[in-house]
Amino acid sequence: MNKLLMTPGPTNVPERVIKKISQGMLHHRTKEYSKIFGELNERLKYVFQTKNSVLTFPSSGTGGLEAALVNSFSKGDKILAVSIGDFGDRFIKIAKTYGLDVDEIKIPWGSAVTIDKIKEKLTDEHKGLIITHNETSTAAVNPIKEIGEFLKNKNILFIVDAVSSLGGIDIKMDDWGIDVLVTASQKALMSPPGLAFIGVSEKALESAEKSNLPKFYFDFLNAKKFLDKENPENPYTPAVPLIVGANEALKMIEEEGLENVFLRHKNLANKFREEVKKMGLTLFTDPNAFSNTVTAINIEDGKASFIKENLEKNYGIIIAGGQGYTKGKLIRIGHMGYVNEEMIDRTLNALKNSI
Amino acid sequence: MNKLLMTPGPTNVPERVIKKISQGMLHHRTKEYSKIFGELNERLKYVFQTKNSVLTFPSSGTGGLEAALVNSFSKGDKILAVSIGDFGDRFIKIAKTYGLDVDEIKIPWGSAVTIDKIKEKLTDEHKGLIITHNETSTAAVNPIKEIGEFLKNKNILFIVDAVSSLGGIDIKMDDWGIDVLVTASQKALMSPPGLAFIGVSEKALESAEKSNLPKFYFDFLNAKKFLDKENPENPYTPAVPLIVGANEALKMIEEEGLENVFLRHKNLANKFREEVKKMGLTLFTDPNAFSNTVTAINIEDGKASFIKENLEKNYGIIIAGGQGYTKGKLIRIGHMGYVNEEMIDRTLNALKNSI
Repeated sequence: MNKLLMTPGPTNVPERVIKKISQGMLHHRTKEYSKIFGELNERLKYVFQTKNSVLTFPSSGTGGLEAALVNSFSKGDKILAVSIGDFGDRFIKIAKTYGLDVDEIKIPWGSAVTIDKIKEKLTDEHKGLIITHNETSTAAVNPIKEIGEFLKNKNILFIVDAVSSLGGIDIKMDDWGIDVLVTASQKALMSPPGLAFIGVSEKALESAEKSNLPKFYFDFLNAKKFLDKENPENPYTPAVPLIVGANEALKMIEEEGLENVFLRHKNLANKFREEVKKMGLTLFTDPNAFSNTVTAINIEDGKASFIKENLEKNYGIIIAGGQGYTKGKLIRIGHMGYVNEEMIDRTLNALKNSI
Repeated sequence: MNKLLMTPGPTNVPERVIKKISQGMLHHRTKEYSKIFGELNERLKYVFQTKNSVLTFPSSGTGGLEAALVNSFSKGDKILAVSIGDFGDRFIKIAKTYGLDVDEIKIPWGSAVTIDKIKEKLTDEHKGLIITHNETSTAAVNPIKEIGEFLKNKNILFIVDAVSSLGGIDIKMDDWGIDVLVTASQKALMSPPGLAFIGVSEKALESAEKSNLPKFYFDFLNAKKFLDKENPENPYTPAVPLIVGANEALKMIEEEGLENVFLRHKNLANKFREEVKKMGLTLFTDPNAFSNTVTAINIEDGKASFIKENLEKNYGIIIAGGQGYTKGKLIRIGHMGYVNEEMIDRTLNALKNSI
């Protein structure tokens, strides 16, 4: 039997989705596939809360972040980057790999950036702001809405990594003025890993026309050209069964209603945190920045791996440990995507008996 | 019911593989996953006929070709590229995108390159030779073995696109001196699309150390570092169910025996071509370059799409048309991976009734 995945991704995949995946051995240059890919694209717009196109690449979320950068900028472009943890650091690393001139705002782990900090650092020279919405390594959420309001009408690309939040925590691409919004299939979107989804604004596509960073596989304009065909398709062979599966998962979100999905995540996260505190444990994250998709719990030195192993061995539940300097000092428990109260209770019970 | 995929990829996926995929919702940082990924790596070495590492990326084959280039070279490096069709042209396009100085050998479609042509064009200045093994657009095969023998002891990287051949047509990475060998999951390897597999020689890894082309997602050295861990894993979230599926597909190849797999492909291809000729149809490809994984058949102007549609509608069989200038003038039928005599007969019968 498969284990219960209470990690911050990959997450549990519903049977309905698995069934579709195993029926999804279609050819990608058929009308049958185009129909499904077309449906997926409409549903992606719904969860991205956008009228823009959302591009799909066979890739991990990291590939999606790379795609966001190589299509938006040219060599030497100055950008402002916010990091509040491990994934923010990774985003900066990719930007530097491609020769971008990165000004960094680094926030101590566990907290979010403040809008004042961004106001202080942003200059007219910055061609883009890159930031993580939900920092999986610290279970903290950045104030994307406020940042978007501040950036509105500024000549800058607003690029957001929402890999571990989109579909679990509210993020409004159009209303909040996001130009490039990146997520992946295996988090709140309830599908297996293997697909990156990237929303692109008109401004982002205009920047892609000008960008001189090299790209071929991750070329936005080429993907957009194939997406806009009468029968939408992909430039290169897509991961067909994963796309068929993701379409079903997004259908489930549509049926539940996006607002209800966010509410479910919020309620389960609140309950989880309250019950964890009742056990005498403390949370790693600043309460002002609590994430609704993942919780990071402080664990006294040495006990984190025992807890992780005990949950796996005796309860069939997979959770995650700390990353970077928090390794061995944290456990991180994901509650996103296909998650319900029963799973939360099972995890709480297992945790209680393991600390 | 799923249709019979007689295209040059994606190909039919055996039930055994689909079953594994639907059970493969594991977390990628567990020993359970590492065990499967470790098995996959050993099996990949068997089908690549190599002692070298074979790296796995969530990506299409095109991404794999890009990875091969960005890890092997530095900006401005001079390389020799052989193109005998559409996929050879694509390989050249990627190389130029990354600022390589490409000398091209272009062979008329339907034929293979000759070793003399390569001897004539290759100079000491060339840091690499890039070539397609099996050109899917023309159903022609290049003489990789002879080229490898000629290149032996030369200071050059030998990079081969075997996306539509590896696991169907003999290609011996080590014996033929191939430095970077690229394939994908959805052709002869009987798995759904979504994974690129890349064999890398010691020389290729040394070149990766020196290469200054930008890369992050497709970084060979990082993938190798994670592969070489005691419990092998991936730098970024892998497409777990596809990996579990590919491991099962490779197990099937192991059980049948690689030599038997090649023989089956050869016999089915021979039979298919002979029967097609008996129908009064002619083959597009030079008989000296016949591919054992795909056959390209000349079709008088205008009838190709009717045949394609008729096979799909009335027989549930998907085949491919021509690419590039052969569009509308060819049909291409794949016979690779999970293919047997019954499928060949079904396709021949449908074709006979559609011309």
